[in-house]
Amino acid sequence: MQLTVSLLPSIRPVLSTTDVAVVIDVLRATSVMTTALANGAKEFLTCQSVDEARELAQTHDADVLLCGERHCKPIDGFDLGNSPAEYSSDVVQYRSLILTTTNGTFAIAAAQNARAMVAASFLNLSAVLVRLRDADSVHLVCAGTNGEITAEDVLLAGAIVDRLFSEVNLELVGDDAILARELWTAWMGEGGSDQNERLTQRLAESQGGRNLIDVGYEADLARCAAIDLFDVVPERVATTPNTFGIL
Amino acid sequence: MQLTVSLLPSIRPVLSTTDVAVVIDVLRATSVMTTALANGAKEFLTCQSVDEARELAQTHDADVLLCGERHCKPIDGFDLGNSPAEYSSDVVQYRSLILTTTNGTFAIAAAQNARAMVAASFLNLSAVLVRLRDADSVHLVCAGTNGEITAEDVLLAGAIVDRLFSEVNLELVGDDAILARELWTAWMGEGGSDQNERLTQRLAESQGGRNLIDVGYEADLARCAAIDLFDVVPERVATTPNTFGIL
Repeated sequence: MQLTVSLLPSIRPVLSTTDVAVVIDVLRATSVMTTALANGAKEFLTCQSVDEARELAQTHDADVLLCGERHCKPIDGFDLGNSPAEYSSDVVQYRSLILTTTNGTFAIAAAQNARAMVAASFLNLSAVLVRLRDADSVHLVCAGTNGEITAEDVLLAGAIVDRLFSEVNLELVGDDAILARELWTAWMGEGGSDQNERLTQRLAESQGGRNLIDVGYEADLARCAAIDLFDVVPERVATTPNTFGIL
Repeated sequence: MQLTVSLLPSIRPVLSTTDVAVVIDVLRATSVMTTALANGAKEFLTCQSVDEARELAQTHDADVLLCGERHCKPIDGFDLGNSPAEYSSDVVQYRSLILTTTNGTFAIAAAQNARAMVAASFLNLSAVLVRLRDADSVHLVCAGTNGEITAEDVLLAGAIVDRLFSEVNLELVGDDAILARELWTAWMGEGGSDQNERLTQRLAESQGGRNLIDVGYEADLARCAAIDLFDVVPERVATTPNTFGIL
């Protein structure tokens, strides 16, 4: 498998020859997408701007929910923010969700050209690995925060790289994969039963985690650190807009 | 000390409030600058384009040498390439050198706004640390390779971060510094008498190292891995063009 990691979407383009692009925005877009689809949501329609989200809602059926954040906070007039806690079954089951976030939906747009696209979080790490196993070329795209590298996304990329190393023959493109894997090994490599607690602590040390704590969302760190809580992979099922569901 | 690391020049601007910007292009621009100034060169005038270098040479005194590379290779009509081996005392002593390289001189231009600018390599690691010790704000700028992150530059940034941690009270801006330090600790943290040999091996594994090996410059890896071989710090002594000498 040819494996590319980009620590930011801007570092290198996702090529149209890429079998699977994996979008990573641990805090919190891809954790929210995993949670909501596992809890029975029908689909996520993603877009980059708030205006675009509102327009999409008008052309879509009445049952749609407007979801997302700006600077970690809910958007005026939207139904849901960007905390996994908001996406329980009773709220999202069978619903179409329109999502716009600061960084996650930008990374999704940047990965647009790949043949297939999936969303990864710690919540569905093992399920994503099963999905990737047979691909010839994979590109992990870390969303980052406002154009800057964030450790929480790099950490998940590193976990994926590390697990792929033990499963398939890897050809790495660029050095980003090496950096990510070393961070994962240094921070989380030992495993053990307290893994989720240690990961929660590491997320709190990351730029994305510090940003969330600053605006009062510290409880979301543990919600995004529950490794393999769900067995679903959000996968792009349509483009224009990029729409994710469970295949 | 407020410490910022950018794994690429493009990730965040170097602010005019920055006390010292540290430009890092281990393979090979900043290693060449360190070597040549230690061997008695008068100054380095840096510029981004080959045409600009030729124009500078015409307006400068006759004793100037044209230096640099494109895609790791010497430039047609230039006096010296980008291998430290070419910058011996008998060649460079008392000479003004005009340098243009693919990535290093780009990083220098990106760091332009800082109050002071120095060039770091493994060859002058300890000397750079002495220079930084009393600064209030420091920004390490990794040159990378053709817009992509390269492990060899991140590794030196990590070495600087790690040493600063043990010497001063650090406030980190962004997560790049954490990634760099973890790479240094994982790859080189144990120290020991075979340090330069291990570093040479690590440089060979990096993107910049692989690029050099591909075009026949493998011997330069050891030349750039001789930690603390020199006790000089190339420092910007003039702008327009950015000119480096020993203060």
